[in-house]
Amino acid sequence: MNKLVYVIGIDLGGTNLKVGAVSSDGKILFRLSVSSDIKDGKDATIKRILHSIEEARFNVRGLRLAGIGFGFPGLISPNGVISNAPNLPDWEGASLKNELADKLSAPLFFDNDANLFALGEGWLGVAKDAKSFCCLTLGTGVGGGIVLDGNLWHGADGMAAEIGHIIVEPDGVSCMCGGRGCLEMYASASALVRMAKEGVGDGSSVPPSADAIAQLARSGDPYYRGIFNKLARYLGIGITDLVNLLNIDMIVIGGGLSQSSDLFLESARKEMRKRAFKVPADRVRVVPAQLGDDAGIVGAAFLALNLEHQIKEDQRNPT
Amino acid sequence: MNKLVYVIGIDLGGTNLKVGAVSSDGKILFRLSVSSDIKDGKDATIKRILHSIEEARFNVRGLRLAGIGFGFPGLISPNGVISNAPNLPDWEGASLKNELADKLSAPLFFDNDANLFALGEGWLGVAKDAKSFCCLTLGTGVGGGIVLDGNLWHGADGMAAEIGHIIVEPDGVSCMCGGRGCLEMYASASALVRMAKEGVGDGSSVPPSADAIAQLARSGDPYYRGIFNKLARYLGIGITDLVNLLNIDMIVIGGGLSQSSDLFLESARKEMRKRAFKVPADRVRVVPAQLGDDAGIVGAAFLALNLEHQIKEDQRNPT
Repeated sequence: MNKLVYVIGIDLGGTNLKVGAVSSDGKILFRLSVSSDIKDGKDATIKRILHSIEEARFNVRGLRLAGIGFGFPGLISPNGVISNAPNLPDWEGASLKNELADKLSAPLFFDNDANLFALGEGWLGVAKDAKSFCCLTLGTGVGGGIVLDGNLWHGADGMAAEIGHIIVEPDGVSCMCGGRGCLEMYASASALVRMAKEGVGDGSSVPPSADAIAQLARSGDPYYRGIFNKLARYLGIGITDLVNLLNIDMIVIGGGLSQSSDLFLESARKEMRKRAFKVPADRVRVVPAQLGDDAGIVGAAFLALNLEHQIKEDQRNPT
Repeated sequence: MNKLVYVIGIDLGGTNLKVGAVSSDGKILFRLSVSSDIKDGKDATIKRILHSIEEARFNVRGLRLAGIGFGFPGLISPNGVISNAPNLPDWEGASLKNELADKLSAPLFFDNDANLFALGEGWLGVAKDAKSFCCLTLGTGVGGGIVLDGNLWHGADGMAAEIGHIIVEPDGVSCMCGGRGCLEMYASASALVRMAKEGVGDGSSVPPSADAIAQLARSGDPYYRGIFNKLARYLGIGITDLVNLLNIDMIVIGGGLSQSSDLFLESARKEMRKRAFKVPADRVRVVPAQLGDDAGIVGAAFLALNLEHQIKEDQRNPT
């Protein structure tokens, strides 16, 4: 008798580790969010991951686990080797497959967290009817995922879709990436706080979080509304590049800052429409993400389901 | 007995109409370049196209014509319907297939000229070993083509790859497209002349062509070298966006201005390496195009060969 099949999706972030058990038709059967405690080092976090997987398996016992998808906040190969991890430097060079495989009796699949965010929104979220779309996660930084004709575009080294590093101001603020004037420096939560401080001398009176700035802007404070307008303008410029280059169906805006999209999304759309070619600008829908905190685990689950399926097909039809 | 097969590639430009007969293994058997005389109107140019095709067929008589590929300087559907033609306004709305099909006994295939430039360089030119690459044609404007995993990326409306309309200066010069600060306004032949004029008051002493400015720069004139450096910087910024977004193997620089690439290409590469992520920046080769004036007809020929082949395959294996 065939057991019902499910997969586990893992979304490792700098703050939280999220783990979900997802059925093959996209129902989240169980979800868990714990602190990722990355400051305790890689080994502690890996223990935490293994423990969370066990907990998920226990909660859906009776079903058959077909695969585990893993979203990592950095550059990771399909084989789970980490080559770049700006926020987790002690993970660089590690092979997650080696660290996890012998402790888990299921196939493992890996990708970048922003890519899996895009897969998640494409499978069950706002982009489920879009063939080609870009996702931006506006958080501490700006992450990106590009889906073309239903497939993630990874590029030659898996480094594509760095949407946060489109240049929007040629002589602009220095970026962590080594560049200058990147979108991330104008359209992230940290950029919002920095821009607010820049405008008021020593900046000590500026609220220290994007949420607090959003509250002030929403209450009508013209200074903080102006800061959001500045963010919107640069986001509109970055989006224009995507529209003119890729002529996609949709641009999805996620990440923590997207909870304040009422304060910038319509202005960003207007900026883009003013600048981009008419046909692709009329085509593209620029919309907030829909899955919230679940996008990462849903995307990781989709990766596992999809690749697991492909592997089976290949075994059935060897070429 | 099977006759040898060839295709005809047509490259219609604002100045010249180029027609080539190309064998299925990529030899140019016959080529012809005449004035496109677009000022005489669409019907006159179409007559000229038909006459040139006849001339090509006569010159390779004995071989079998398998298809005709047509590169158009504007937005054209795979069925040959023109929806946008900035330099040929009286062609908008026309169906080239309707105008040509009953006069030609071969299947017809259509695409944008910059896309076919990319296909040409990918088939027989500098990009023949690259899987994914971008082409820029630096001429009066800046055209673009994006090839991903061997296929042109057209986008949802066939409007993708407008590389000339990446924004490189948010408050920059107004562009013909309605936008502002587009790459085309800083890295085309006309931009070079404009930037040279901007720097010298009334500008009357500035040579009126990019070629003449290039000669002065090459002779060591520091003012004109500075203009080329400015162009190189903006080209480097635009290229950075491509590298960070698409992580391609190669960027090919063609168009009239690429004949002066000794004056700007190395500086543009340096600007990109300073700004882009290291892994994709190390990967990408930024190189001049190789096929010169032939790229358009070679790309059009490739389109015809390739699609003709696909159609035959589909007929053989109906789904």
